[in-house]
Amino acid sequence: MTRVLALCGGVGGAKLAAGLASVLPAADLTVVVNTGDDFEHLGLTICPDLDSTMYALAGVNDEQRGWGRRGESWDFMSALEGLGGPTWFGLGDRDLATHVMRSHRLAQGVSLSQVTAQLATALGIGCRLAPMSDHPVRTCVHTDEGPLGFQDYFVRLGCRPKVERLEYVGATQAKLSRDLQAALSSSRLECIVICPSNPWLSIDPILALPGLRFALRCCEVPIVAVSPIVAGRAIKGPAADIMRALGYTVDATNIGRHYRNLIDLLVVDEQDAESNAAIEALGIAPIRAPIVMKDEAARRRLAKTVLDAADRWPGRAEHPAQKKVFGAVVPQDGAPVAPRSR
Amino acid sequence: MTRVLALCGGVGGAKLAAGLASVLPAADLTVVVNTGDDFEHLGLTICPDLDSTMYALAGVNDEQRGWGRRGESWDFMSALEGLGGPTWFGLGDRDLATHVMRSHRLAQGVSLSQVTAQLATALGIGCRLAPMSDHPVRTCVHTDEGPLGFQDYFVRLGCRPKVERLEYVGATQAKLSRDLQAALSSSRLECIVICPSNPWLSIDPILALPGLRFALRCCEVPIVAVSPIVAGRAIKGPAADIMRALGYTVDATNIGRHYRNLIDLLVVDEQDAESNAAIEALGIAPIRAPIVMKDEAARRRLAKTVLDAADRWPGRAEHPAQKKVFGAVVPQDGAPVAPRSR
Repeated sequence: MTRVLALCGGVGGAKLAAGLASVLPAADLTVVVNTGDDFEHLGLTICPDLDSTMYALAGVNDEQRGWGRRGESWDFMSALEGLGGPTWFGLGDRDLATHVMRSHRLAQGVSLSQVTAQLATALGIGCRLAPMSDHPVRTCVHTDEGPLGFQDYFVRLGCRPKVERLEYVGATQAKLSRDLQAALSSSRLECIVICPSNPWLSIDPILALPGLRFALRCCEVPIVAVSPIVAGRAIKGPAADIMRALGYTVDATNIGRHYRNLIDLLVVDEQDAESNAAIEALGIAPIRAPIVMKDEAARRRLAKTVLDAADRWPGRAEHPAQKKVFGAVVPQDGAPVAPRSR
Repeated sequence: MTRVLALCGGVGGAKLAAGLASVLPAADLTVVVNTGDDFEHLGLTICPDLDSTMYALAGVNDEQRGWGRRGESWDFMSALEGLGGPTWFGLGDRDLATHVMRSHRLAQGVSLSQVTAQLATALGIGCRLAPMSDHPVRTCVHTDEGPLGFQDYFVRLGCRPKVERLEYVGATQAKLSRDLQAALSSSRLECIVICPSNPWLSIDPILALPGLRFALRCCEVPIVAVSPIVAGRAIKGPAADIMRALGYTVDATNIGRHYRNLIDLLVVDEQDAESNAAIEALGIAPIRAPIVMKDEAARRRLAKTVLDAADRWPGRAEHPAQKKVFGAVVPQDGAPVAPRSR
């Protein structure tokens, strides 16, 4: 029975997931991953966020490159180029085994949850790793050059087109994966962690699943987010660009604003101390900590910070920052929220 | 317009195809390849004979190993093993680009002929390379352990089960590929070569296509086969085992017997000179030559021998070995054959 549910996107989120896995007993952790970045390429179903998280949890990820497997080789890509195939999306020789296995199993009718569990087990991952849904959700980036699949926008076009809005195609028809449902209804659940992934590209597709925002609030456990923005910059990836494109100032306060009415605590970097008052005004308790995860020690430290903060959280009705705004809290899908107690 | 049509299976046949390509202008040669060995594996459509021939024609084949690409790496396989995937069929990292590209194009509705032509062009192959058919034909090996797909029998089970008979599933519903039809109806056609591939596993699936035997005889050009058996042994692969299993003595004469009423000339190794009289008695003109192709020079030499023999062939009605038995010749599909002239 899960004690901690982590919602996770790509690289930054995967690091914290790995940190949580290293400080928690395996049975206590469920990591649920965004599938909005998934796409079909060369006939293969590729799940970049699931792979980044899986490789990080298995300790086989390439930390330097930021994606894919460590000690990777690229002979497939060079042969593909020689055959006139598309080379804009990098597929390492080892990484390809994941894509081929997964695509084959999916074509056989096995669910993405089952395939993910099989691959994770084969790689020695002890905690539960699951996609947010077994139904396809595809993030569409509406830009000044028209609508683009996320990987088209992010990888093929290098984030050059101007983002106008994001759409999570398929989300309203998708159901929560069984592991996500199980974690939400776990009687032992103590904490929900929103990993430092891109809120718009990695977390919002998860939150767009029908009923999830309401279900998260109904769990009556603290929801702790970790800011992916440090000192006005994204640690990795296009989060800052996306924030600017959508008209936001790139700072930790706007991460809090984005998660307003959803999270109870927001872990921000020590460099962003000046945002504390603004975050408190949102009804969110700010936690200051070093949040850049440069090595395993830093990942473990941040994981402990998150779990400790959740552990010390007195409940929404008790927390001074939340007391002030509590009456006004209504979740985005319209249902009123009852006061929570632990 | 094709002058030479070569029917080809795997490794041995591919060597002669490469020899023919090196002595003929590109436009003069069409190489048509067995697809009975094709199979579906991990969601990919794999065409071992087409690949062996394509790699040999492109000069990127691994001559030592006998299959796949030269300078191959195996990181995909080792990762696949780590994920608990099937490892009985070797898939090199470079080779995999071919399988992924082909499978993707086939799934998009592109024909096997078109995919093959695209891949061959990308690899710099000048002659026409084509599958025997765009319709799936799958060689089924009926054994004492039940019916087996060819790769199951050959690779996974290492030819251990006892072969009872072979069946070319789908052959009677398959149509000749457009390139095969075009070669057969080429007004410039001068010679048809049956490469030294396994007669039962590589050539018979081609000959099983509806109407092909009859069409071959109607071309009124010499049909030259090269024996895959030298001094009672197969140069490579399971030809000798298959012959024994089917009740034949392993010698060049039985290759002639197998191709009786189809071929006009049979090139046998100098070591098999004693078979000459028996081959002549079948109405086939024997040609003695060194037929083991150890290097490029040997491949070119054998290609020239084959083309010279075809060039010197006086026509069925004129050749002493064929004159004797000519009246009795009826092709296996039952239609009588008219005397041929050049």
